[in-house]
Amino acid sequence: MAKVIAFDFMSGDKGAEPAFQAAEQFLQKNQDYKILAFITNKFSIPSVYNQNIEFMECKEIILQTDGPMQIKRKENSTLIKAIKSVLDKKADFVVSAANSGPLVAAGYIYFRTITKDLRPAFSPLFSNIFGDKKVLIDAGANANPDSDTLVTYAIMGSEYFKALGISNRPRVKLLNIGEEEIKGNALLKETFIKLKNEKRINFLGNVEADKILYADEDIIVADGINGNIVIKAYEGSFNIVYNLMKESADKSFSTKIGLLLAKNMRTKFRKAFSASDVGGAIVLGLNHLLIKVHGGSDTKYFLNSLILGKKLLENHLLENIQKKLKNGK
Amino acid sequence: MAKVIAFDFMSGDKGAEPAFQAAEQFLQKNQDYKILAFITNKFSIPSVYNQNIEFMECKEIILQTDGPMQIKRKENSTLIKAIKSVLDKKADFVVSAANSGPLVAAGYIYFRTITKDLRPAFSPLFSNIFGDKKVLIDAGANANPDSDTLVTYAIMGSEYFKALGISNRPRVKLLNIGEEEIKGNALLKETFIKLKNEKRINFLGNVEADKILYADEDIIVADGINGNIVIKAYEGSFNIVYNLMKESADKSFSTKIGLLLAKNMRTKFRKAFSASDVGGAIVLGLNHLLIKVHGGSDTKYFLNSLILGKKLLENHLLENIQKKLKNGK
Repeated sequence: MAKVIAFDFMSGDKGAEPAFQAAEQFLQKNQDYKILAFITNKFSIPSVYNQNIEFMECKEIILQTDGPMQIKRKENSTLIKAIKSVLDKKADFVVSAANSGPLVAAGYIYFRTITKDLRPAFSPLFSNIFGDKKVLIDAGANANPDSDTLVTYAIMGSEYFKALGISNRPRVKLLNIGEEEIKGNALLKETFIKLKNEKRINFLGNVEADKILYADEDIIVADGINGNIVIKAYEGSFNIVYNLMKESADKSFSTKIGLLLAKNMRTKFRKAFSASDVGGAIVLGLNHLLIKVHGGSDTKYFLNSLILGKKLLENHLLENIQKKLKNGK
Repeated sequence: MAKVIAFDFMSGDKGAEPAFQAAEQFLQKNQDYKILAFITNKFSIPSVYNQNIEFMECKEIILQTDGPMQIKRKENSTLIKAIKSVLDKKADFVVSAANSGPLVAAGYIYFRTITKDLRPAFSPLFSNIFGDKKVLIDAGANANPDSDTLVTYAIMGSEYFKALGISNRPRVKLLNIGEEEIKGNALLKETFIKLKNEKRINFLGNVEADKILYADEDIIVADGINGNIVIKAYEGSFNIVYNLMKESADKSFSTKIGLLLAKNMRTKFRKAFSASDVGGAIVLGLNHLLIKVHGGSDTKYFLNSLILGKKLLENHLLENIQKKLKNGK
């Protein structure tokens, strides 16, 4: 039976065109897949397109400026309709570029979490300076995790990396303010001890914020507040760097040389560091796969997110997480 | 009566020489000051020096690798002896390049805090991209602040900025994961409300981690964990930038042009952003002034820290803080 992706075409910054192009490219290589394309009447359906795309017209769009509360008022949006198609067993997973606030909220409300009382975790993939993939979990969906929740995040992240085919024994570290076991607040100290004693994961200790792009972990477990702050600080600093480089190149050299260097650096930064540009972020902890594409993504990143979903579906990520969480220690 | 600085010459990475040079330069311009220079026998006292320097030989040094616990075993170190000289009323304030862990711990144990139950805050000055000074409070000394403590930090930070002569009505923001009042965990939400209702400060709302080098606040109030993570993330990213620039310049251009650009950028970063290089960090909340110089500092930064201490002493920072905290709302 064909597998089906519920693809929200409309929530990205750049309109539906990059999503449409990505869908076309994905289906050319994956003929056992179908795509339900959730659109509004702002998108003119082309006269020629892959027949494995089925267009589903909706009333409205979750905007990039919408917060988590908007989802209650936008039940007929492309995002919510895509989510509901999975609940109705018409699709296997959801890909959307909606803002992470409403995306996580909608996932939580409609898909519910794998275990009771679990709050979902926003878990973006990014690359370190060596080009190795890492995941930060949680990057800001859960502001009030307890230590058991952080352990669950570590287990889910480990299964995520196994399903991605990156590692069979992914290395877990805890974001903290020092490497020693005694560092941090009560939550971080307690979590350290639980992670250390947890047989289902490969725990290596604490990692500090200045080391996350160098260090040897695959999975960075973080309190949602800390996770959000570390990723935003890196994003902010790289934005400043690019702007300064541009300015400096303009001023110092009238030739193309300075700007060429600046451009190379920018590409390198974007590729290597920007969490938002690497691929997708998954909302971990839900009963169904929900993949977030960066709001400003182009065709390539939409395509990567479709491929990411396919891999996680076919490698049975959710079943593996359920198994691990049931088995206990 | 002459004012006296207890100056730990030995705890920096580069030995006592930069501290000694800074002391000489400071005393030339400030003839109403004396310096107690805490040294070990590793420092050979020069035959000619300013007679307002009095050398105090100690047994040992707090190393850059020492943690907070080391201070218990190093009672005869240059740092602890300098601190004790203030308790003995032989000096007015302390300047040291000791590692912040033992420095804050020693300040807490020997100086005690201004109000009961207060934990001191490590409060580094840094500059934003426009060159304006800011202070982050707390950058990692207190991992478990409550909302009242964060309000006290806001008040102390405001008095700090007034004593520096930067602003008479310093703008305070709270480090959080979104700008809206409802963002963050229980601590941040509660703190937001208290800051908003606090008459002794000028509160402007939340600031996100990616904006701290652009935004319009003077004082960033943070949970010590979040404060440490944001500052380390910026430091880590700027280190990476410099290394990548160097690498890129080496590879792309055999001429000096690429490296010149990289060098310019590095200087710009260091000057503009590196918390450690801007001046000093004060440990706020103690009954006496305790100023930390960056471990790798050269003469200029030691000198800046001496000038910082002089300014805070002469502008009665501690008395002003005490007055504000006593007056209540």
